Amino acid sequence: MSPPSKRVCILGSGNWGSTAARIVGANVAKLADFDDTVNFWVHEELVDGRKLTDIINAEHENVKYLPGHKLPDNVIAMPDATEAVKDATHIIIVIPHQFLQHLLETVHGKILPSARAISLIKGIGISDQGMTTMTQIIHRALAIPVSSLSGANIANEIAEEKYCETTIGCQDPDEAIVWRSLFNTPYFQVNCVADVIGVEFCGALKNVVAVGAGFIDGLGLGNNTKAAIIRIGFLEMRRLAMHIAGASIQESTFMESCGLADVITTCYGGRNRRLAEYFVRTGKPMPQLERELLNGQKLQGYLTAGEVYSYIDSCGITDHFPLLTNIYQICYENMPPHTIFAGLNVDFSRDTQVPSPAL
Amino acid sequence: MSPPSKRVCILGSGNWGSTAARIVGANVAKLADFDDTVNFWVHEELVDGRKLTDIINAEHENVKYLPGHKLPDNVIAMPDATEAVKDATHIIIVIPHQFLQHLLETVHGKILPSARAISLIKGIGISDQGMTTMTQIIHRALAIPVSSLSGANIANEIAEEKYCETTIGCQDPDEAIVWRSLFNTPYFQVNCVADVIGVEFCGALKNVVAVGAGFIDGLGLGNNTKAAIIRIGFLEMRRLAMHIAGASIQESTFMESCGLADVITTCYGGRNRRLAEYFVRTGKPMPQLERELLNGQKLQGYLTAGEVYSYIDSCGITDHFPLLTNIYQICYENMPPHTIFAGLNVDFSRDTQVPSPAL
Repeated sequence: MSPPSKRVCILGSGNWGSTAARIVGANVAKLADFDDTVNFWVHEELVDGRKLTDIINAEHENVKYLPGHKLPDNVIAMPDATEAVKDATHIIIVIPHQFLQHLLETVHGKILPSARAISLIKGIGISDQGMTTMTQIIHRALAIPVSSLSGANIANEIAEEKYCETTIGCQDPDEAIVWRSLFNTPYFQVNCVADVIGVEFCGALKNVVAVGAGFIDGLGLGNNTKAAIIRIGFLEMRRLAMHIAGASIQESTFMESCGLADVITTCYGGRNRRLAEYFVRTGKPMPQLERELLNGQKLQGYLTAGEVYSYIDSCGITDHFPLLTNIYQICYENMPPHTIFAGLNVDFSRDTQVPSPAL
Repeated sequence: MSPPSKRVCILGSGNWGSTAARIVGANVAKLADFDDTVNFWVHEELVDGRKLTDIINAEHENVKYLPGHKLPDNVIAMPDATEAVKDATHIIIVIPHQFLQHLLETVHGKILPSARAISLIKGIGISDQGMTTMTQIIHRALAIPVSSLSGANIANEIAEEKYCETTIGCQDPDEAIVWRSLFNTPYFQVNCVADVIGVEFCGALKNVVAVGAGFIDGLGLGNNTKAAIIRIGFLEMRRLAMHIAGASIQESTFMESCGLADVITTCYGGRNRRLAEYFVRTGKPMPQLERELLNGQKLQGYLTAGEVYSYIDSCGITDHFPLLTNIYQICYENMPPHTIFAGLNVDFSRDTQVPSPAL
């Protein structure tokens, strides 16, 4: 038997990265063509005076970001990202998007030319020029194929091995099978689609809809109202995706876990919904809530709402996105929360009538 | 000015019928071509020794089925259905489906030949022979055009005037405008589609998915899991509808409030979800829970789950509907609730591969 030819590295050890390490660590141990060891890059920090990498390697638990859940013994924490990626054929990138650029500069030139990556990062950049996704940024920096993974995946519930689904976007069908073998478990069901960007787009845009859902909760409205906002938000997301990147996105991706299911999950759980609820109940501006409740971290849905509005406004197509426009105006222009309903009776059967982008 | 040529009758005065009466009563008062009076047929009963029709006409409140919400003064309760329909041009039928046949026999021959009806009844009959909807039953009995109305519409939330949407299925575009004018309000937004049966199908099938969602709650699982069940359930509903009646149903109807939004609402609120949760937590059989919690009334989702299974089993296509099959087996064949996840990883991109019905 030939020795295993493949090796996994996970870059990022937060809540979601540690959850991914549990799944992938258990899977590689059963895959003959993968080395058993998973290199797990951990941004070094001290926890009660001990190095976090030492704690993870001694106790097999990320006591800071995923307490209460053991990591497999074959997941080895390493403080040096260049060391971690050195021999990796499969690189899983799962860090907050604001740290991505620095990480890419660190590992640039240190990876195998034949390596490939998958991004578990939530986030997208939208400007007047169109959009930039995390896989695009990674691909430009490292010049390797990059896939995406996103779904209705609240990390703690997965760590508890509660059944859910996820979506992998991967252009190459053979590679998709390999990525699926790393992630699929009986409780974490992977569907693959050949639409890298569509998967990422869903993962970012759903946060804006969740802000809208949080406004509904803050207003004390009920299930009917929230379902209406989810439905309209989902259709506006899909309409926007097809408008920005219709040529490179498959509409069917929106019916996968990364689309429909993630919108629903995020509108009932998660911090975008929660902060938006506080925003309505307290009347405090969003940046103040970010300081008070997120240690100054930016709320993804709030950020993306601003970028989306700037894009649709510059294209002159805000009329086709009344909900996304209303959410923006409530977040940024002091419109009262109940104005979220203004002009929502738009006809979604005429999606093709949104003027095409000038770009 | 010519006198108003149109007149509304509402047949049914339960929770949903009384809510509809609030909306329609307020709207006709503003519509020049409608007589101000709304005939409101109330199945007579005594409440604290007084006739319910007398209470409604004196106090303008259905104290039994929609307490706490005033009805407009122009809604006139009548105990005799034949009297109520006599001059009506627009008949709104909103009674539990098990009473429909008797009501139709009562009013048969008593309505205007030029009248038209709309069904707000939830329910559908599925047998080996295909399906029969409420509008089909009404049309066969009365030989008038029949439309349908369904959506994410928990009645009490609408009575509280919390924003929501609904869908009217109406073949004739001019008639759709009239029905919309009767129901649309700033808090109750009506979209019209030319798909009477699709709207009804969604309203009935979503209850089976809600039973599945209730099992998830009973098992103590989380948001990810529930979102997965809602997504798969929604896709199996659509797949089944296209299989049974693809020629007469529009797939796009599933993205309307009657489809996507109603599935979500019903999976988070409503009694189908609730009884299914009890079913798992208590281990009691469903008929016992119906006796204990619904005064022996049948649970719609439980009933429909049985009919659906009988249909897909007779067609030999259960493999294409793993979730609907699992829900059936848990309800009727003592399979344990956690088996709901068995074989759910079906590929929904190949919907056309479900064998066509032999019928």
